[in-house]
Amino acid sequence: MSYLSQLECSECGQTYDAQELHNLCLKCRAPLWVRYDLDRARGELDRDRFATRPAGLWRWAELLPIDDLAQRIDLGEGGTPLLRIDRLASQLGLREVWLKDEGRNPTGSFKARGMATAVTQAKALGVKEFVVPTAGNAGGAAAAYAARAGMAIHVYMPKDAPPANINECRAVGADVHLIDGLINDAGRIAAADAKEHGWFDLATLKEPYRVEGKKTMGYEIAQDLQWTLPDVIVYPTGGGTGLIGIWKAFEEMEALSWIGSKRPRLVAVQAIGCQPIVKAFEQDQLACELHQNAHTIAAGLRVPKPLGDRMMLRAMRASGGTAIAVNDEAIVQMTEMALRVEGISMAFEGAATLVAARVLFDRGWLKSHEKIVCLNTGAGWKNP
Amino acid sequence: MSYLSQLECSECGQTYDAQELHNLCLKCRAPLWVRYDLDRARGELDRDRFATRPAGLWRWAELLPIDDLAQRIDLGEGGTPLLRIDRLASQLGLREVWLKDEGRNPTGSFKARGMATAVTQAKALGVKEFVVPTAGNAGGAAAAYAARAGMAIHVYMPKDAPPANINECRAVGADVHLIDGLINDAGRIAAADAKEHGWFDLATLKEPYRVEGKKTMGYEIAQDLQWTLPDVIVYPTGGGTGLIGIWKAFEEMEALSWIGSKRPRLVAVQAIGCQPIVKAFEQDQLACELHQNAHTIAAGLRVPKPLGDRMMLRAMRASGGTAIAVNDEAIVQMTEMALRVEGISMAFEGAATLVAARVLFDRGWLKSHEKIVCLNTGAGWKNP
Repeated sequence: MSYLSQLECSECGQTYDAQELHNLCLKCRAPLWVRYDLDRARGELDRDRFATRPAGLWRWAELLPIDDLAQRIDLGEGGTPLLRIDRLASQLGLREVWLKDEGRNPTGSFKARGMATAVTQAKALGVKEFVVPTAGNAGGAAAAYAARAGMAIHVYMPKDAPPANINECRAVGADVHLIDGLINDAGRIAAADAKEHGWFDLATLKEPYRVEGKKTMGYEIAQDLQWTLPDVIVYPTGGGTGLIGIWKAFEEMEALSWIGSKRPRLVAVQAIGCQPIVKAFEQDQLACELHQNAHTIAAGLRVPKPLGDRMMLRAMRASGGTAIAVNDEAIVQMTEMALRVEGISMAFEGAATLVAARVLFDRGWLKSHEKIVCLNTGAGWKNP
Repeated sequence: MSYLSQLECSECGQTYDAQELHNLCLKCRAPLWVRYDLDRARGELDRDRFATRPAGLWRWAELLPIDDLAQRIDLGEGGTPLLRIDRLASQLGLREVWLKDEGRNPTGSFKARGMATAVTQAKALGVKEFVVPTAGNAGGAAAAYAARAGMAIHVYMPKDAPPANINECRAVGADVHLIDGLINDAGRIAAADAKEHGWFDLATLKEPYRVEGKKTMGYEIAQDLQWTLPDVIVYPTGGGTGLIGIWKAFEEMEALSWIGSKRPRLVAVQAIGCQPIVKAFEQDQLACELHQNAHTIAAGLRVPKPLGDRMMLRAMRASGGTAIAVNDEAIVQMTEMALRVEGISMAFEGAATLVAARVLFDRGWLKSHEKIVCLNTGAGWKNP
């Protein structure tokens, strides 16, 4: 059923058996890509067939790492609406802005997609117990999918993570560790405990399957826009798995001959208090440095040194995109504006994309006539 | 496009022009049904055609009161997942229980469906300003759709309504009136203010279009189960529009020859502290009496005298169903159990359906092999 073929290192190209459990590349410690036999799939998969299936992430089963769909760990993730926001757009100076409302996923954030595929595949490959470090939403999502799978999970998050995130993990029975530090500190401690106890580490890009769930955002955007991609995609970037996943989806869809070679310009949005990707992009670096004293009200953006920095920077540059940091006060105001003008509940991280769109229009980087998709990665009720 | 034909009084049968604005029947003050030309539709509408459209409420446009789909007020409502919950079901003594997760709608509740169609149609028919009385979630939904439509709204709710509901109304810019009383008191004051100012009253069943949005739950359940209905549907009943809407959907689908004449038994679930429907059902009454001193932690069930009592009681009896009241402590425990066992976030009202299923199994009314659909009408994060 799935065209899954192998795992492949994103840096050195080393390949691994997709039917074995892997985290990072054993040679260079870089993230692994999941690869599919797209040459064979191209002749066999008609893109229009997918529209007739039930909405949601698993609609794309042939292009996901799953052999038996009945074994999926499913909370009804994906298939989120793409909403055109004309009145708010006009206040930003723009004409055609679409909001992909990922807050409508289980646990109220886009993290559900990645955890659905990661927990499904890990369980299929024999994992008994999980660990996950998180800035907030990933913990809640991982904990819910672990509960749905009937498995134990240990969540490590900053002690000042949003209360909604701490509570949602505890409510589903996760073992929660509050860390005096940021997500990179949580990641280090989680990894050590995982090694000691034999737990599987679900940290962003430390296993290959979360990106596979996230990439379905790219498939959905293309399908919802009748297989013509927008001019620009604006994405709030913490760990960056979503941006990486969407880019991967576009590459796969081109290999399948579902779309052409034209790509949206990818915009990575960060907060002024934590902008390692913006700095690396502006300084033409291949990777980013740890952002000291990272702080922002948008907890999901508080990732001082993402593991996927190289993958993100490559995609942004290849697309002719850019990176931009916006300030917390403008983010908070934008969440209020989205509610009043459009009735849409946005995560701070999602609202940051609209602030970025306004700044980029003012700078002349965005033109008023361009078709823009902004990702609202979570629901407003999770905001602290 | 739509097969909309006319409005028809649910008691006296008087008909009204569907292209004019109406609230209750002018003769007998009973709710109005929206009717369609189903004889013509039967020959023209293939049920399988609908599966190929984007998921969500507007998939059923021909069977909704809308002429121009581009004019819809849309937050991406409907198309919610139907999740099988095997592990939780076995703890209730049952084998096949499905949860329709309405908490995944905009504003986190099933109220979004009704408000989407009601606000859309009212705007199309010239309404400029709304009023709505609410026990909680309907206010939040109405306020969000009014904001999306760029229209003003006045929300009347009990002063002890859940804080999440009061806050969500204010956040989208609604004019909120906190009432020293329950939803029937709020409804009385709202109606008086509506009359004085010329606002359109969105109160449950006081206009004909909310039921139309709610009925799409019935269409979705049938479609998701491959056009075979379950044995039993368990529904938390406050105002009861959802139950009435689902029943209407089944009648329409039979008239369209999409399903046969077999119906699920409908179970109305209420709280022990507010059970007017249960009492009327048990006492073989055609309508219910006002429940004195109504109280329950499930705010959506705190409706002491629903306007749709006759419609509900008729549907429950015609289906061979029943009505049952459950206690608040069991409801709260069930929300915790649903999170821990299945990772699913449930409103208190939704959790009440699972408590009811357990009680009905213990009583022998439900058999372990029966296929049961429970409605989770909202998300757990809105619980007080």
